[in-house]
Parts: sequence; structure tokens; C-alpha cells
Amino acid sequence: MGYFRENIERMVGYVPGEQPSPEQRVIKLNTNENPYPPSPRVLEAIKNIDAELLRRYPEPMADRFRRKVSQVLKIPLDWIIATNGSDELLSIVFRACVGEADQVAYPVPTYVLYRTLTEMQGGRYVEVPFDEDFSLPVEQLIQAAAKLTIISCPNSPSGTTYPSELLDDLAGKVAGLLLIDEAYVDFAEEDCLELVSKRENVIILRTLSKGYSLAGIRLGFGLANPKILEHLCKVKDSYNVDAVAALVGAVALDDQEYKNANVKKVNADRAKMKINLEQLGFRVWPSGGNFLLCKPPKNNAEQIYRMLKARGILVRYFNQQGLDDKLRITIGTDEQNDILIAALKEII
Amino acid sequence: MGYFRENIERMVGYVPGEQPSPEQRVIKLNTNENPYPPSPRVLEAIKNIDAELLRRYPEPMADRFRRKVSQVLKIPLDWIIATNGSDELLSIVFRACVGEADQVAYPVPTYVLYRTLTEMQGGRYVEVPFDEDFSLPVEQLIQAAAKLTIISCPNSPSGTTYPSELLDDLAGKVAGLLLIDEAYVDFAEEDCLELVSKRENVIILRTLSKGYSLAGIRLGFGLANPKILEHLCKVKDSYNVDAVAALVGAVALDDQEYKNANVKKVNADRAKMKINLEQLGFRVWPSGGNFLLCKPPKNNAEQIYRMLKARGILVRYFNQQGLDDKLRITIGTDEQNDILIAALKEII
Repeated sequence: MGYFRENIERMVGYVPGEQPSPEQRVIKLNTNENPYPPSPRVLEAIKNIDAELLRRYPEPMADRFRRKVSQVLKIPLDWIIATNGSDELLSIVFRACVGEADQVAYPVPTYVLYRTLTEMQGGRYVEVPFDEDFSLPVEQLIQAAAKLTIISCPNSPSGTTYPSELLDDLAGKVAGLLLIDEAYVDFAEEDCLELVSKRENVIILRTLSKGYSLAGIRLGFGLANPKILEHLCKVKDSYNVDAVAALVGAVALDDQEYKNANVKKVNADRAKMKINLEQLGFRVWPSGGNFLLCKPPKNNAEQIYRMLKARGILVRYFNQQGLDDKLRITIGTDEQNDILIAALKEII
Repeated sequence: MGYFRENIERMVGYVPGEQPSPEQRVIKLNTNENPYPPSPRVLEAIKNIDAELLRRYPEPMADRFRRKVSQVLKIPLDWIIATNGSDELLSIVFRACVGEADQVAYPVPTYVLYRTLTEMQGGRYVEVPFDEDFSLPVEQLIQAAAKLTIISCPNSPSGTTYPSELLDDLAGKVAGLLLIDEAYVDFAEEDCLELVSKRENVIILRTLSKGYSLAGIRLGFGLANPKILEHLCKVKDSYNVDAVAALVGAVALDDQEYKNANVKKVNADRAKMKINLEQLGFRVWPSGGNFLLCKPPKNNAEQIYRMLKARGILVRYFNQQGLDDKLRITIGTDEQNDILIAALKEII
């Protein structure tokens, strides 16, 4: 047609995990939602929403929400940017940083959106393959000397975590920005929060979709030096976070006790699920997320995915190099996990 | 710093209209919100939101909402894209269409974000000045032969509308895409909906922020040929519209009667406000939006803006060429409009 940029015409869009309609009764272990509902305080807050909050434009910087982030994480307000899901933070960082032919480096397999966003910008991706243990290929990442380096930690879909010291060292050696995608960090033992104050080039990504069970409201945030955020803010839409999300997000953050209890339960079930899968002969990678990457004993991942789907159980199968022999399974409720394991026993 | 693209480092971000915190008691006639609350059905729907809607990712294409758009506007589902406010639709169109050095043409003064988005993409803007009557500079826009041409209709901040035939003709003569920004169309006599099926290169922008009183939830949508939307969808975030907004938007669209009654009231008050301002010696431009552009008799627009602000009345003053002698005033409630006129009587 010629109406669009060549790189856009050429590219294939990112395909998100299947989202069955709310009416469909499926066991949904494919897109890493938290199996438990958000804090009851969130529902209470929503019930009491004032029409005025809907009628008026929201706060451009979602201050109400950011103040709560600031309080909970003990980080100053101007080190925080709120976004329409953490995907929007990624999109903002790419738009601000990656020009045509600029390089973006990250280890693979990881979140496929990094590649999609690079393509959108007309940039060049340097995909450094992980080894079988998903160890961080530090040297190759440094050698790439990319404008933007991204580490997903815990990495999706492997669940691998990396020590903060390792990423600190990496931050000191990469040429440009280091974005640490901590979408799953609520389920991990460690985070990289301290790197933000220590390293000017570090951006940390967070979301309320996972630990706080709020994937439906689209709320994420970034943490970085105000000198970095100044430029990111130029790129974001004026009112990128809606008023309901900002309110709900603040209320959810305020209920740390509820979130922590859910995380504890999910992590205990992750340990149990790992044992169950291993007993079935799966190889299971250690995970700091609310999911497990696993490799079935008979190397028939795609077939298992389809057979589970036929039984109304959705898990994630990635038809791509390094992953097409594996499945990523979200930790569900006890009942869901039991049904999955029972189904696997019959299938494999 | 060197971390960012040069055009981003250079540019100044878009500055949205002042958004006083919800606690501040001001008469807010500066950002064109609808003075009336959204449909009571919207509040009812919010009160009954299920936790599951928050916990799970939303539908990637906001189908529930789009089905309602399809029904109300009588346009097929695959001609509709839902976005996080109409600003996101603009951002998506720019990202898909405008590469480095590509031209974007539009008449000015208009929505300043068009320039900001062009700068973000590293594109070049061709700003064709309106005459004093805000007539459409059709020939110059065609001569620009831009990749993207934008007409705001009704235009903000002037309120000017253009006949659908004129824009149809323009669509046939511009080199690339023609985006018609109909954010304010609910208050106008005519729309350009029919151009979408007639002209492959036309994208129509709509929002629920104005006519439907839902600026707080960030919900807009685009209408275009599926061949166009295919490329726009590649650029949008996977889950760009949150589940609450999609639900609320569908409910609001369903209550056309309520929206139409509000629009009728606003339009009647717009006529009344125009007469009142003219009686005070203002020049007032004809408007198809929920606002009026006016020029005070003593050419002291900025001073009036400040004096009104000191009295807790916010109107919009744009410190830019062609507008710095004018004010843009949103139509408020009867009480707000009366207070404004009374204040102006004392000030000017």
C-alpha cells in the first residue's frame, strides 16, 4: 500500500497468549496471571468510585499512584513513571532510545516483545542465545555495545533470576541503557531496586499484573534516575494511566500483607508443581516467577499443549528455536494445578 | 547524556492543560471535559465489576467494546480499533506511518500534539497557517504531499467544522493517509463516517472523553479500512485497553439517549455563551465543539487568563502564534458559565 513505514509493512505483529472470552470455562495457565483475585480493598475502592473521577482527565503523572509506589518502595517520587501496563513502559523506552539502525541487545529466549519493538523502531536486535541453563551471556551482551540492553529478571519464559551484583556489573559495562524487566520480581527472592540509585543508566520495570493480580487494569511503572525519566516522559501520552487504574493500583500497593500472602502461596505451589512435574519425567528449570518452564520426557511439547487445550487447559507453547521442545506453565490454584498434573499423567 | 535519540533529547514534551487535584475546588473550563457526569448506567456497571475482570488480561482487541461501537455506528467490527484514549490512536498512527524525515501536514493552530508526535518520530511537520476564519487551506495541504495529513474536525481550539464533501475531496488528493480527528464530533452537526468506506486512506479518530464524559477512563477508537488497521494493530500494545474501560465504554455507548441529552444541553449553552461573550465585546468563532475560541476586546487574553485563574476559574490560554490573543473556554454547567461571565464582566 505504501502508506506505512517499510519496517512496519514488513513486520509481523506480536501475538499475545490466547485470551479466551470471560464466558469460556478454561483452566488458564498460559499468560502468567496470578490465580488469586486482587485485594478485597480493591473491589471496595471500585464500588465507591465517584463519577467525577471518570468525567475528568486523570492526573497526567498518576501522582496518587506514584506517591504510594514511593512510600512502599522508599524511592523518591521523581524517580517513578507510571505506565499503561509495563508493555507501555517498554514501548516508551524504545521510542525514546532506539532510532533507525540502533542496536538492542538481550539474551534469548525471552519476552518476544523486545524483538517486536526493535522492529517497530527500525532498529537492529542482537539476540544472544542463552545456554541450556539460561546463564547470563554477560560478555556477548557487553560486546554488542547496544544503545539498549534488556535483561528480564526473573526471565520469562525460563524463570531464571540473576544476582543483583551481576546486573550491577553489567550496568557498568554496557554502552547505553540497561533495562531490567522485573515484571515477575514479586515472586523472586531478590530485586535490583538498589541499582537505580547506583547506576544512572538503569531502568527497572515493574507491573501490577502479576503479584497484585491486576492484569485487567493495565498498570505498570518504571524506576530510574530523574535525568532518564525526563526524556521518557516526553514520549508518553499525556494521560497514559487512567484514573481507575491509578486509584486501584494505589489501593492494591497499600495492601502488602494480602499480596505477600498470595505470593507465598504461589511460591509454595511452584515448588510442589516442580516436584510433580519432575516425577513425571519433565526437566524443570528453577524459577523465580509464577510459572515454570519444563521439558516433557518424550520431547512432544507441542502435542501435549494441544492435548491439554482439547481438555480445556491452556498452557503456553512457543513455536520458536530453543523453546519448541518446552512448555511454560503458570502456577494456578491448588485445584487447577491438580487437574493439570492429573491430565499430564494421562497424556504423556 | 547520549542515551536517547537525538530528536528526543532535543524536543520539549507536550504540556497538557492544567489538571488540578480532585481536592482543589476550581471551575475547570480549560480541557474540554463534558460538564455532566457519565451515564448512571456506567456507575452501576462499575459497582458490579467482578474481581475476575481485574485479575485476567483484558481482551487484546477490546471486542466487547468494539462490538458496541459496531452496533451503534453500523460499521463492521474489523473496521474498528480501540485505543487507550484517542491520543494513543494518534501515537499508533504516527509510529506506523511516520519514519525519519517523513512529512506530516496539518493546518495550524490545532492540537499541538500533532507536532510533538512528528518530532518524536524524527519526522518533518508542514504547518499550514489557517486564515482568520480558520478556512481549510486545501491547496497547500495537497501540495505538501505528506505521508500523513491531519484535519481536526471540529478543530481544536477554534471549533471550526468542515463539510464532509470538502474532506472527501481532500482525501482523494493527498499523497498519503488522511487522519480526521473527530474527538469533538459528538457536538457537531455532521461527521465524516461515510468517508471511511469510501476512501481507503482515511482514518477517523473518536473518543469517549468528550460526548460520553469519560475522560478519566482513557478510551478512544479509530475507524478505517481493515487493510489500514492491520498495520496499526502491529504497533499497538497487546493489551492497550484495560478491561474496566472496555466495559464502561460499552455501557456508555449503549446509553445514546443520555449522551444525546447532554450534548443538546451543552450545545444550547454554547449558543448562549457565545451571545454573552459577544455582548462583552469578544470576537467568538463558530464552534462545533464543546468549547468556544474567543478574542477579548482589549487584546489582553493572557491577563484575563491569569485573573480568572486567581479567582479559581481555569480557561485555556495558548502562548503561541495565532492564539496568544485568544482564549479557549470549555462550556460548563449553567452555574459555571454564569460565574465565568460574571467574572469576565468585572475583569475586562
